[in-house]
Amino acid sequence: MHELTEKILSGNRRAIAKAITLIESSREDHQKSAQKLLSDLLTHSGNSIRLGLTGIPGVGKSTFIETFGKMLTAKDIKVAVLAVDPSSKITGGSILGDKTRMEELARDKNAFIRPTPSKGTLGGIARYTREAMIVLEASGFDLIIIETVGVGQSEVAVADLVDMFILLLSPGSGDELQGIKRGIMELADLIVVNKADGDFKDAAKLAASDVENALHLMKPKSENWTVRTLEISALNNIGIEEVWHNVEDFKKLMVESGEFDIKRSKQSINSIWSDTSELLISKIKISSETHISMLEQQVQQNKITSRQAAEKLIGTLLKND
Amino acid sequence: MHELTEKILSGNRRAIAKAITLIESSREDHQKSAQKLLSDLLTHSGNSIRLGLTGIPGVGKSTFIETFGKMLTAKDIKVAVLAVDPSSKITGGSILGDKTRMEELARDKNAFIRPTPSKGTLGGIARYTREAMIVLEASGFDLIIIETVGVGQSEVAVADLVDMFILLLSPGSGDELQGIKRGIMELADLIVVNKADGDFKDAAKLAASDVENALHLMKPKSENWTVRTLEISALNNIGIEEVWHNVEDFKKLMVESGEFDIKRSKQSINSIWSDTSELLISKIKISSETHISMLEQQVQQNKITSRQAAEKLIGTLLKND
Repeated sequence: MHELTEKILSGNRRAIAKAITLIESSREDHQKSAQKLLSDLLTHSGNSIRLGLTGIPGVGKSTFIETFGKMLTAKDIKVAVLAVDPSSKITGGSILGDKTRMEELARDKNAFIRPTPSKGTLGGIARYTREAMIVLEASGFDLIIIETVGVGQSEVAVADLVDMFILLLSPGSGDELQGIKRGIMELADLIVVNKADGDFKDAAKLAASDVENALHLMKPKSENWTVRTLEISALNNIGIEEVWHNVEDFKKLMVESGEFDIKRSKQSINSIWSDTSELLISKIKISSETHISMLEQQVQQNKITSRQAAEKLIGTLLKND
Repeated sequence: MHELTEKILSGNRRAIAKAITLIESSREDHQKSAQKLLSDLLTHSGNSIRLGLTGIPGVGKSTFIETFGKMLTAKDIKVAVLAVDPSSKITGGSILGDKTRMEELARDKNAFIRPTPSKGTLGGIARYTREAMIVLEASGFDLIIIETVGVGQSEVAVADLVDMFILLLSPGSGDELQGIKRGIMELADLIVVNKADGDFKDAAKLAASDVENALHLMKPKSENWTVRTLEISALNNIGIEEVWHNVEDFKKLMVESGEFDIKRSKQSINSIWSDTSELLISKIKISSETHISMLEQQVQQNKITSRQAAEKLIGTLLKND
């Protein structure tokens, strides 16, 4: 275990992968080892910029991450990419997690790409991601990108894990489907219109100005930062440096104003409660399967309220231990 | 207590209001009384159509509910309206909950309007709403409308409380801000474009056809129902009957196919888990304030992981009881 810690601190990629696998495992002994490991790494964590990135399928997230990532690793900035995609109840299945999407970056020694665990609740996945960030930070990654797909609830969860949130849009996918979702726009610190090249150049300009108009009508997310809109082309490597300058600007302003630390503090507290809730529920689910299905039936048949069922489950948990 | 039950079963409005206040109270004795009451009412519940309604501010939700509600009460259909609006973290404050918005309906003896409780977690508000529905159904309401504002996470929570979900759109608010959010469209069983009158008539038609196009690209939510799009004017009472026919059609098809009951069954089971989680967290928060703030500090200072804090909190809970 001590060896694994040392290897992670020295940036060994195989050790990092092993640690994250441990974190994602549901086996109790793995979980114990993972927590021990994280304890050791914790004091070495916290020094990266944590970046959320969202956008609906087709806006070019992979191309953007590949181009953006390569530009950074060339500057000796170490970049990790984690993908969060809790399979949507309705659409089902995993859209992300395909390492081959970012081939060159995946081979880069200054980069680390990890696909999403395909199973688990949103709370569980948020915890894996948070813990994977500790490992990556301890092994010296400077930028951690948490990628998510802009169709569901995962954005809100991811926004609670990161320092800065980028919304990627494309001009070509039709205004409606493009879905500049107000809820997601509210989360964004930077809005990047991709595919601003060739035939789409004018459309991208138009999309960007539409976004600007929409932003004017919204309450600013922060007193210390005004949301900016950029037009880029990930494919043609146009405007990618500009994105990085904005990330650096953002971090500088947030750190100086103290908002950076306040935000991380709040996130820490939220994480305790989401972990508590997730762990308690899994404890109950393990402890009393027959009791659970009996209570489920009673609720379905309108014999007891769901709160009464909840109280019975909690009662069993408190007695069992 | 028995008297209150009787009064609710006979449709006494003051008794209904009193029961809902009891449900919303955080006092333990009130909660106990509420659960006792709900137990008595439970066998009389389940016979309404539960309708979710969402749309961003300005699309005319209140006007729609007023016109739709009055049309129904005139047919001797009893209509209740509950508003769900967990104050958004970013926009803050309550947008809904103003009884005066639906003045005529509020005075109607066949209607009951209840503003949202302004405090509480999303899980808590979902529970209040679920329990308030039991009271309303036991006192004979035929249709319960759960209104929410289409900007945040509450739609997903509400979709899990209702039989049918209606998305209200307006043609006039600009394609972007209008925010036909893909995530919310996925939840909708019926999409209603409001303000299809006067100058907006053509724009409404256009919006409806845009919606139709977007719908074609989505995976259908149900095998037994194809999502429909209607153009109405709540202000001029155009197309309102048509909305009701669609609600009736939907219920008929869903009941016949068995999907109606399956959905309610699943919702029951989900409700057990969300109530369990909510109750456990509140139990922990009450039990150990100083312990909590100590753990919060340790997590903020990177001394322990949030999962370790969670385990300590759970440990205390299990020992205390």
